[in-house]
Amino acid sequence: MTETFERLRTRLAEIQDLRRAAAVLSWDQQTMMPLQGAAGRAEQLATIGRMAHELFVADETAKLLEELRGFEESHDPQSFEASLVRVTRTDYEKAVRVSPELRAEMSRAASQGFLEWKRAKEASDFAAFVPTLERNLELKQRYLACFDKGEEDYDVLLDDFERGMRTSEVRRIFDDLKAELVPLIAAAEGRNGEAALEGEFDPDVQRELSHEVIELFGFREGAWRLDPTMHPFASGGGINDIRITTHYESGELESLFATMHEYGHGLYEHQVDPALERTPLGSGVSLGLHESQSRMWENLVGRGRPFWRFFYPRVQALFPDELGSMEVESFYAAVNSVKPSLIRIHADEVTYNMHVILRFELEQDLIGGAVDIRSLPEEWNRRMDAYLGIEVPDDAHGVLQDVHWSGGAIGYFPTYTLGNVMSLQIWERLREDIGDLDERIERGDFAALREWLGERLHRHGRKFTPAETLEKIVGGPIETGPYLRYLKEKHGVPAA
Amino acid sequence: MTETFERLRTRLAEIQDLRRAAAVLSWDQQTMMPLQGAAGRAEQLATIGRMAHELFVADETAKLLEELRGFEESHDPQSFEASLVRVTRTDYEKAVRVSPELRAEMSRAASQGFLEWKRAKEASDFAAFVPTLERNLELKQRYLACFDKGEEDYDVLLDDFERGMRTSEVRRIFDDLKAELVPLIAAAEGRNGEAALEGEFDPDVQRELSHEVIELFGFREGAWRLDPTMHPFASGGGINDIRITTHYESGELESLFATMHEYGHGLYEHQVDPALERTPLGSGVSLGLHESQSRMWENLVGRGRPFWRFFYPRVQALFPDELGSMEVESFYAAVNSVKPSLIRIHADEVTYNMHVILRFELEQDLIGGAVDIRSLPEEWNRRMDAYLGIEVPDDAHGVLQDVHWSGGAIGYFPTYTLGNVMSLQIWERLREDIGDLDERIERGDFAALREWLGERLHRHGRKFTPAETLEKIVGGPIETGPYLRYLKEKHGVPAA
Repeated sequence: MTETFERLRTRLAEIQDLRRAAAVLSWDQQTMMPLQGAAGRAEQLATIGRMAHELFVADETAKLLEELRGFEESHDPQSFEASLVRVTRTDYEKAVRVSPELRAEMSRAASQGFLEWKRAKEASDFAAFVPTLERNLELKQRYLACFDKGEEDYDVLLDDFERGMRTSEVRRIFDDLKAELVPLIAAAEGRNGEAALEGEFDPDVQRELSHEVIELFGFREGAWRLDPTMHPFASGGGINDIRITTHYESGELESLFATMHEYGHGLYEHQVDPALERTPLGSGVSLGLHESQSRMWENLVGRGRPFWRFFYPRVQALFPDELGSMEVESFYAAVNSVKPSLIRIHADEVTYNMHVILRFELEQDLIGGAVDIRSLPEEWNRRMDAYLGIEVPDDAHGVLQDVHWSGGAIGYFPTYTLGNVMSLQIWERLREDIGDLDERIERGDFAALREWLGERLHRHGRKFTPAETLEKIVGGPIETGPYLRYLKEKHGVPAA
Repeated sequence: MTETFERLRTRLAEIQDLRRAAAVLSWDQQTMMPLQGAAGRAEQLATIGRMAHELFVADETAKLLEELRGFEESHDPQSFEASLVRVTRTDYEKAVRVSPELRAEMSRAASQGFLEWKRAKEASDFAAFVPTLERNLELKQRYLACFDKGEEDYDVLLDDFERGMRTSEVRRIFDDLKAELVPLIAAAEGRNGEAALEGEFDPDVQRELSHEVIELFGFREGAWRLDPTMHPFASGGGINDIRITTHYESGELESLFATMHEYGHGLYEHQVDPALERTPLGSGVSLGLHESQSRMWENLVGRGRPFWRFFYPRVQALFPDELGSMEVESFYAAVNSVKPSLIRIHADEVTYNMHVILRFELEQDLIGGAVDIRSLPEEWNRRMDAYLGIEVPDDAHGVLQDVHWSGGAIGYFPTYTLGNVMSLQIWERLREDIGDLDERIERGDFAALREWLGERLHRHGRKFTPAETLEKIVGGPIETGPYLRYLKEKHGVPAA
């Protein structure tokens, strides 16, 4: 039986090799590849992706999984062996539901949709994007038809990004948030308005600063890279080949927070138990928990007072013209200012969630047919006004701003805010365990934080479901209490 | 029948996708990858290599090739269709001779041998390297046993790098060269001794210079990259994704010539007919012809008077301290100085060949059993003295200097000098066609040269054999006349 298990493991290791290779090739495409290499790269990635998929959905996988039922049962569910068989079975059962033809069609539609979206956004021409959305929605309906009907259609889509999460649960969480955030935003708006960051912020110096801050956090040359790209992301070739990216733009310091954000993603992947490498268990368990980590380093560490008390003098030294005469408290206020704005990726940590909630609502309406595609801009603009008091000047700055729908990624957005919510549940717990966390951060010591996260969350990789993983850390399910407490305490209007 | 051909083509396209992916991953490993990613990367490359190989040697390939015999005969041998079937058949017949087990063993021995060589070289301890060489030679004998016995065993090894080339032909060429080079070197030595390059040569400025010179040659950002690495090489993801590398070292200008050398390799790959992309025909035909191109840009263009008349002021401007007071003729003399030295990769264009000839002789003795492995250092040192008048201080600077044997690459070295020889045959022919080549180079115009090479050599890719490819350009087989004329004219002692 061990031999059967080893055969499964070898098969999965090869599949994982292909997926890691594809990840590095995608990273390369977005950071290094000469532009004209795009056509060839698309073929290479398609071939590798198809081969990995074919190896995985082959009858041989099913046969091995079937033979390993007894083996799985004879092992502790927490063990590597039982987890590998269990998670592989779940992955397999999802993967074989969708025909290779539909998968190929979705993949082609995504490539084509990306170009159509770029053109439509450049021209701010939503009508030009309608056929893309129609095609993607039609494909989504065919995709949904491959699965058993759950409580709601949207459950199936959500499950692709946050396995096991229910739409009804997300709705409950988002309704809680919305009820508190809308008044909080209205009250907080402009409170920190005066303390804006202004100046040149030379991109080369930003680059130095980005490297410095993550080296302080725990980035090590031998196992990590940081490179510039257009839209920051984290990726890599394995647990010891972590590649994060950022984007430097003069006149602002967003690169620094993007770098800290991607560091959080990178650290999660880097601290997965090395014994899980070359298996499907060897990476972060869900987009939501991943986002809990990126948001933690970006917002809870990186926009926190203890960190800036320690690090601000260094930033001042690098940008004497811009920050030389600005007090640390003003800087802290500036990087924490709450102000409704048009673009999600530039939003502050409070209003960000309203962008996500708006999307989630529209996605459900789209999938459920409650909203006609053609009236999306109108619906978008109406809600931007209702939730954020923002008037949308054109669709490029409204409904067309994000790439996700062009590739049929529906069900992805909620994970951003689920991550925010979970980040505070985890943060509260780790502050109980590391009593002097603020003092440590204030002296630039991040070792205990890293280790706690590694031990309690990262090392598990995909061994357990997202909900089980969270439960192991915080002792219960996802809930909004800690996050709302944090936001109100940090951004709420002080009691008179 | 067209359908059968398309099936073969699709299969080969997928194999080519995997090979290109592997090339980019190898490039990444040598330029970008964090060091600790090495173990994971080895697995990824092994899996991709094995899959490409298995797809290629599968029975299905043989079946398609068999069914396409009539199809091939019905097409012009020069056509894409006939060439694809013909070349694939030759590749296939070679590939299936070697069992997957032997192939895997050779690949493992190469990885292991590389580490053993590094250690042995660092310690200058040849005895420690003997077991590696013994294992590699034993594997080589098993490899030879997979093939029909030709005139000489060494033919099989040579064929892996320069298809169709015979050992007897190489021996004839090398004997010709040796007879002329040994006295030429003795006479030329030190003639340019006074004109040495001395100074700092800041690596950052070298970097700027390298980019400038290849942009002048025809490097374009959209389809090329240049990056630093330890041991320069050329690679890439396809015809429009060319990646060349160089090595910057302060105190010298070798990086510039390494860059020009790799540019020559890159241009060959870049100018292959785009219709051959995603087929096994879509790259340079042999190591020898590839080297003819790299040596042409490095030595015939890059160490030529017309080029330096044009470009020297720019180099002076970048290195005013080092070169401000040096005349162009002294600089020309310095970069063309002939001086026997210990290390092949640092050798000048004349003595370089003697390093190669020495290797070729030793390799034949090794394969034929005429030399015992243990006496290699002695044999090496004896010939270094006889051919170059050089005393070898230790094995690190002698027989252990190069990596090739550690990976079992025997039969590779001769292609370096074959490339030199062919470069002059091609150069003579192209000077006939481009009558004003020197004048063009002297005004920094390389378009005609690039286009001639593209049209006459590069575009063919692997459609024809190396000998056929050369014959198309120069109308005959490889011969030493033009190369020896060039060397004597440039480096010979002028008649009194």
